[in-house]
Amino acid sequence: MEKKYCFGVDIGGTTTKMGLFTIDGELVEKWEIPTRTVPKGEPVLPDVADAIQKKMSEKDIAFEEVVGIGYGAPVSMTADGYVTWSANIGWEEMNVSKKLAELTGMKVIGGNDVNVAGMGEYWRGAAQGYKNVVMITIGTGVGAAIIADGKVIVGATGGAGEVGHIHVNDDCKLQCGCGGYGCLEQYGSATAVVRLAKELLEKDERPSVMRGQEMTAKVVFDAVKEGDALAIEVAEQFGDAIGKGLAAVVAVVEPEAFIVGGGVSKAGDVVLDYIKKYYQKYAYPAAPKKEFLLASLGNDAGIYGGAYRVLFE
Amino acid sequence: MEKKYCFGVDIGGTTTKMGLFTIDGELVEKWEIPTRTVPKGEPVLPDVADAIQKKMSEKDIAFEEVVGIGYGAPVSMTADGYVTWSANIGWEEMNVSKKLAELTGMKVIGGNDVNVAGMGEYWRGAAQGYKNVVMITIGTGVGAAIIADGKVIVGATGGAGEVGHIHVNDDCKLQCGCGGYGCLEQYGSATAVVRLAKELLEKDERPSVMRGQEMTAKVVFDAVKEGDALAIEVAEQFGDAIGKGLAAVVAVVEPEAFIVGGGVSKAGDVVLDYIKKYYQKYAYPAAPKKEFLLASLGNDAGIYGGAYRVLFE
Repeated sequence: MEKKYCFGVDIGGTTTKMGLFTIDGELVEKWEIPTRTVPKGEPVLPDVADAIQKKMSEKDIAFEEVVGIGYGAPVSMTADGYVTWSANIGWEEMNVSKKLAELTGMKVIGGNDVNVAGMGEYWRGAAQGYKNVVMITIGTGVGAAIIADGKVIVGATGGAGEVGHIHVNDDCKLQCGCGGYGCLEQYGSATAVVRLAKELLEKDERPSVMRGQEMTAKVVFDAVKEGDALAIEVAEQFGDAIGKGLAAVVAVVEPEAFIVGGGVSKAGDVVLDYIKKYYQKYAYPAAPKKEFLLASLGNDAGIYGGAYRVLFE
Repeated sequence: MEKKYCFGVDIGGTTTKMGLFTIDGELVEKWEIPTRTVPKGEPVLPDVADAIQKKMSEKDIAFEEVVGIGYGAPVSMTADGYVTWSANIGWEEMNVSKKLAELTGMKVIGGNDVNVAGMGEYWRGAAQGYKNVVMITIGTGVGAAIIADGKVIVGATGGAGEVGHIHVNDDCKLQCGCGGYGCLEQYGSATAVVRLAKELLEKDERPSVMRGQEMTAKVVFDAVKEGDALAIEVAEQFGDAIGKGLAAVVAVVEPEAFIVGGGVSKAGDVVLDYIKKYYQKYAYPAAPKKEFLLASLGNDAGIYGGAYRVLFE
């Protein structure tokens, strides 16, 4: 029987996004299931397997018609699927790819969610056409997919792309979640933008459109667009951290382009403006010109990336 | 006729190192020729081709017995051999691999000298056994070979591994050769160690065994071994810059090990001690433990790397 379909799965801390694709990369249908992580993340993979079986029955798809499953998960894992670190899901000592393959009988390929989403943008999103590209995801934390010659660099134990923990500030007295001080994501994440804005509003008495609003990164960048002086100060700190980090990234892997995704990227081009300003400041002048683009697949990047990986790797 | 040999060539700014290898990786003979760069680097490749022809005649090696030539050169080039930047040699707008293939009729593969030397250490030196490894070369400047899953990352235009230009110091008022300020190699190169030592001896009146000596990085690190307070201060600045840079590298590509080569590495373990001290300070605490090793092939790393590349790529 001819192969016609594959599944792309994006396992999140609370919700798992599922996508049924044709082998030509057309998204036939997408849906979500809750991620049940108690106890120790055990229900997660059986729930995914179950959802796939149900969808196949519903659509009358035969086992032989399916190429397999590609997935991303919010954990660190080696290139062959062995989990090395899993805070949100609770998995311990397991090979996720192998386990899901046992549950479904299918070919399974997966990786860290940021890396898989990066491959989604590479295949169908803003990173199309670039063989060497870095997608930085700016949300609660900051991570990146480092794509060199069309492949994600995973690192020895899955730690590649942890750019949120590049040291960017020698004077930082606040401890990062990782235990360190002065990490990029202490200044360049959505969480950081909110913290910096609150701190500034407290110590600075100038008027600001941000006062009285429930603080989010969106509120800050909307205020920047209106020319709010305090919001601009926060955006400068944000841009300084991300720009300095990406200037380090270019000296290590030299991509053709940087794609900016995650919650903060929804504020639009203004985010790129502040990143580019400081990237130019810190990148070595001989570094060839790079493109800076907003991610274009939004929350679907993960399921696209999963589909790409199982179809083409 | 059976393939028996290959050539590894390390083109330097003043001298070109040549190596004749068996296909089992045994170095049969090595020798050097001057690098004639005037005009515009034109004599360089004909001289290499000529030296290879002469060695083949001398050893009675037939054309059919040679797999090809692998080379490194002190230039930036794309993965397929096109030069994007060449300060020391003077090449303009050319494909080095293609040109040398035309001159010899042989298979030719090459790349940036630091990257090729890194593959030498990977194949026969200190990096053996690591699939993901970074070799940092500390000499007049600072560069690195970024090896991920057994392959060198070249970058979009050959700029990957330019770790000497990672920004590490916000207070730096001195301009780097690249045009920027606060680059790693302004504190972490042999040149920088000499400058920092001279500056310190001038402004600090404490006694030092370095006084009256012609200053080199070796003099500084020898003084460190004797417990010289001023030399130690320089070593701390050196270690801070390299350690901070490698902490950024680990967050981008996460190698298993760092190999330290180049002139400064000849000072021995004391160099690693200062690098490791500051790497631990700046790397995120969750970063898995990494090995730090001295390069072991010395000046032969380039010819070994060339041989590896033409034999196995």
